[in-house]
Amino acid sequence: MAQPATVIAETKHLRLVQRNGWSFVQRTSTNRVACVIAQTPSGKVLLIEQYRRPVDATVIELPAGLVGDLGDQPNETIEHGAARELFEETGYVAGQWRQLANLASCPGLTDEETTMLLATELRKDGPGGGDENENIVVHEVPIEKVDGWLAKAAIDGKMIDGRVYAGLYLLRTVS
Amino acid sequence: MAQPATVIAETKHLRLVQRNGWSFVQRTSTNRVACVIAQTPSGKVLLIEQYRRPVDATVIELPAGLVGDLGDQPNETIEHGAARELFEETGYVAGQWRQLANLASCPGLTDEETTMLLATELRKDGPGGGDENENIVVHEVPIEKVDGWLAKAAIDGKMIDGRVYAGLYLLRTVS
Repeated sequence: MAQPATVIAETKHLRLVQRNGWSFVQRTSTNRVACVIAQTPSGKVLLIEQYRRPVDATVIELPAGLVGDLGDQPNETIEHGAARELFEETGYVAGQWRQLANLASCPGLTDEETTMLLATELRKDGPGGGDENENIVVHEVPIEKVDGWLAKAAIDGKMIDGRVYAGLYLLRTVS
Repeated sequence: MAQPATVIAETKHLRLVQRNGWSFVQRTSTNRVACVIAQTPSGKVLLIEQYRRPVDATVIELPAGLVGDLGDQPNETIEHGAARELFEETGYVAGQWRQLANLASCPGLTDEETTMLLATELRKDGPGGGDENENIVVHEVPIEKVDGWLAKAAIDGKMIDGRVYAGLYLLRTVS
């Protein structure tokens, strides 16, 4: 068992803590993130684009979100959280889910863990775009064109979340 | 230009800040990380293993480290930082460097940016193992066996840093 962490400061969503002299950050609600590599029946992957204040840039990401962060469902499963976020952000519902890997998001800085899930048998059932606090653009990119698409996004000044490439790698290992 | 961030609290290495109502974490020294996908002449990739207090687990990572965090070299280049960390952690020196991508590490939580670099023409020139505060085990894994090796590490209770898979993906796109 790890020693409990000492709280240095806390905002509504984050907590700066220290354990054995090492400081890091925790979310106040959960340390679990579900990240979705979603492939449509026509071979496209779903990418989202949103402005992120910490990096002050538009970032290309996989559909993703916190799991168990809503007060009424603290024991939410990873699959439930993943399906909720995929639908909110992209409007898609998946018929098939598979966990691919459990990843440390940034293990020197936070206790956040990202579970990467593959979503297939996709069916569009809503508008997407995120919840009332989000302003998300959805891109459907043919898998064979994704490397060039991402390279162009970077040239256009957008940042790429590292988990996009991690998800694409894990997708290749199972397809 | 982004509005400046308001400091909520600060430790020696981290700063909890808020910008436009969004809280996130910054390092006090730098927001730049160099992460190295290093391939030996015999086709092995270098992975490192170290205990990480935030996740309270042993984590498999790529050689990586902060750039420009040392007081005497605040303007350190990404390549210099990458070479320094690769040598400290693995004992290898690379004859050839190439930047593959600039990634947002965890863009909802921190302003940290990870530059992924490919290191080739490797030559062993030191013991590795990290600096005086680190206790790092180096693994040289044949590229064709890396998926199984990582799956076994996960079964053995180790966590995988998502940047390992991102680096492997980017390696494939250039080889």
